[in-house]
Amino acid sequence: MSACLDATHDPALRSWVASANDPASDFPIQNLPFGRLRRAGSEQPWRIGVAIGDQALDLALALAAGGWSEDEQAVLRPLARGDLNALMAAGPLPRRLLRGALSRALAEGSPQAGALAGALLPQAEAEFTLPCHIGDYTDFYTGIHHATTVGKLFRPDNPLLPNYKWVPIGYHGRCSSIGVSGHAFRRPLGQVKTPEAEAPVLAPSRRLDYELELGVFVGAPNAQGEPVPLADAEDHLFGVVLLNDWSARDVQAWEYQPLGPFLSKNFATTISPWIVTMDALAPFRVPFARPEGEPAPLPYLDGESNRARGALDLHFEVLIETPRMREAGEAPARLSRSNFRDAWWTMAQMLAHHTVGGCNLQPGDLLGSGTQSGPAPGEGGSLLELSLGGKQPLTLPNGETRSFLLDGDTVLLRGRCEAAGARAIGFGDCAGSVLPAREVAA
Amino acid sequence: MSACLDATHDPALRSWVASANDPASDFPIQNLPFGRLRRAGSEQPWRIGVAIGDQALDLALALAAGGWSEDEQAVLRPLARGDLNALMAAGPLPRRLLRGALSRALAEGSPQAGALAGALLPQAEAEFTLPCHIGDYTDFYTGIHHATTVGKLFRPDNPLLPNYKWVPIGYHGRCSSIGVSGHAFRRPLGQVKTPEAEAPVLAPSRRLDYELELGVFVGAPNAQGEPVPLADAEDHLFGVVLLNDWSARDVQAWEYQPLGPFLSKNFATTISPWIVTMDALAPFRVPFARPEGEPAPLPYLDGESNRARGALDLHFEVLIETPRMREAGEAPARLSRSNFRDAWWTMAQMLAHHTVGGCNLQPGDLLGSGTQSGPAPGEGGSLLELSLGGKQPLTLPNGETRSFLLDGDTVLLRGRCEAAGARAIGFGDCAGSVLPAREVAA
Repeated sequence: MSACLDATHDPALRSWVASANDPASDFPIQNLPFGRLRRAGSEQPWRIGVAIGDQALDLALALAAGGWSEDEQAVLRPLARGDLNALMAAGPLPRRLLRGALSRALAEGSPQAGALAGALLPQAEAEFTLPCHIGDYTDFYTGIHHATTVGKLFRPDNPLLPNYKWVPIGYHGRCSSIGVSGHAFRRPLGQVKTPEAEAPVLAPSRRLDYELELGVFVGAPNAQGEPVPLADAEDHLFGVVLLNDWSARDVQAWEYQPLGPFLSKNFATTISPWIVTMDALAPFRVPFARPEGEPAPLPYLDGESNRARGALDLHFEVLIETPRMREAGEAPARLSRSNFRDAWWTMAQMLAHHTVGGCNLQPGDLLGSGTQSGPAPGEGGSLLELSLGGKQPLTLPNGETRSFLLDGDTVLLRGRCEAAGARAIGFGDCAGSVLPAREVAA
Repeated sequence: MSACLDATHDPALRSWVASANDPASDFPIQNLPFGRLRRAGSEQPWRIGVAIGDQALDLALALAAGGWSEDEQAVLRPLARGDLNALMAAGPLPRRLLRGALSRALAEGSPQAGALAGALLPQAEAEFTLPCHIGDYTDFYTGIHHATTVGKLFRPDNPLLPNYKWVPIGYHGRCSSIGVSGHAFRRPLGQVKTPEAEAPVLAPSRRLDYELELGVFVGAPNAQGEPVPLADAEDHLFGVVLLNDWSARDVQAWEYQPLGPFLSKNFATTISPWIVTMDALAPFRVPFARPEGEPAPLPYLDGESNRARGALDLHFEVLIETPRMREAGEAPARLSRSNFRDAWWTMAQMLAHHTVGGCNLQPGDLLGSGTQSGPAPGEGGSLLELSLGGKQPLTLPNGETRSFLLDGDTVLLRGRCEAAGARAIGFGDCAGSVLPAREVAA
């Protein structure tokens, strides 16, 4: 387990980067997430940066600024070349060594402060790209309240399929269309068929939706044919992001039998720019327990460390900014709140299950958690849930209504971890916007 | 369309590599497929090679041997570094330029023969790896006879789902566990549940199967949000391989609802080592037509060039070699034959559909065709079909029986294209072997 706390988690720790000490900042010195960025509009090579307050520490410039031990330099060198996968591959120890070094270097009173001040880039002046190479992307379905609500829309008497409580259901997703917060994508075309129509037509999706998910990045790999036991699974996790699994519900309904979602999901996926490491999450790990009467996980998905600290107390929030809000200068409107504590499976269980048949995971592989909805009706992690399948449109604070997303809408996911005795940390925005569809060729 | 024939297809063309002129060879000078290989057991960097008879022309040594035009050198340079994706990305023209140059260089009487003789490596002395970087792998379901037979096992009255004849059904697969012919993998563990059991158990799959498929490699990419029209789709295809989509049927049955197959497929996929280019396939392209009374494809999946030459006349064969055959020195036994002409969708339709919602395909992406079964009962492309769901075991020529694969079994896929007035070409073996499962941890 990576849940042990050390000096880097001390809530009293402050940074010489003043903005990091703002209690509202997502990126205090206790967080130190990794991203890949450069000065906006420049042709610079992409750099690995670490968020600190409203700044990003450019690790290429930081390495050049000196003051690091030989071991720290060895860990920093691939990062200075823009390669985060090497650090992911190396497992927890080098990551923690670097975390300790960065924490000391960015702390108030650090002798490196003067040299490192020149390695900061304001995040507002940066553009971001994917933080690492993603070799494979898997999407799970751990949100039992989502699965239940969506299942009810199709099967009122039997919302959860018989395998749900036993199998961490998942399927493979599309890597090439994963983008980073701030991107915009065209409303997809797809085959849709109304129940009364004899044949489907190709048309722009009219039921375009978001899905609020946690994205988990794999660190240390496992060889093909070599499952990772649950007790070791945390050591194969690197960190987490927010993830929006955009979904075209009308395309999905027509295409998904019998092999699962395809074009309804693969046109775009958005992740937040900063990977919050497993180390930063340590203070927010909580017990994993199933409600009374629910089946215990099979032995390969059950274990002491997972029960003790396998879950994660992470508050989610989804907001929408419509074109009218943007024009009027209004703040985005909140659509829902939920918490990753409610997931039916933990991150470690996802990884252990993924490998149990021998599938090899590689550094930088991305595991989506599935839509994270809370138990209450207003806590759905998608519009499909919040609008009851489109039958009950939501009314936004400015009077607009939405059943599904309209062109120009921006969806923002936010996440924040809070715990007694710990400095709260956040994720930054995971934002994506809907552009109009292309015209259907004759 | 890449269906135009040129001098490289002349059936009278012979090579100075004598084994290429053997009529039984899969690799005459009219084929010229690409693979990635090195001398077996060496630590050499992986090289791109071109198969010619029982030899492989090492393109790094071939470039160094000289005799190429400046344009040809420019095309050869990334290949000499072991990078096939660059040639894939460049689209059909550089590939055809190189094909012409290789055809002339390897033809009888070529002035380059002497210099290139030293660039040959006997295939029997080579080891192979994946021919390119595969960024995403998608598996389609174009085998209508497979879909019908498998559907009948579950839904005797309604074997094909309503979307089948309209949607090129597909789903995303796993890249990391794709291996090249000759590899072996452990029988997967997975959750299985018998109908009478109250709970599933983790156990080695007892219904391990193969699936005979064609694998299609993407060449030129498309940008996200920019669908490829069907008329242009052939220009985005690079070439094809044989593909074995190993499947654990018992795991699949329990896990696949509602999001599709996951661990039942992702433990291993095997492809043949040589990518046969779209150019080499040109003489074997045939009309694509639907039986009378079947619905026409929607307009975005229909077009003149696809109707005229969209299909591919490719004979498949599946063989099994059991441990007893191996020990007795017996030849592998044929399990089935089928033809890619029977696919419900063409390669171009798969690509056009994949991009119609805006999904971006990248050079080296792999599209599986889905299991290719023929219309007759003995033509099933999987044991699930041939043994009627395991209820009717096959008897092999040596008296052994199989319902599903046993440990030590090797499955070989073979493919061959033949046409009047053309030199036949083949694919080489696509072989994979089953190792015993790991023990289930307590």
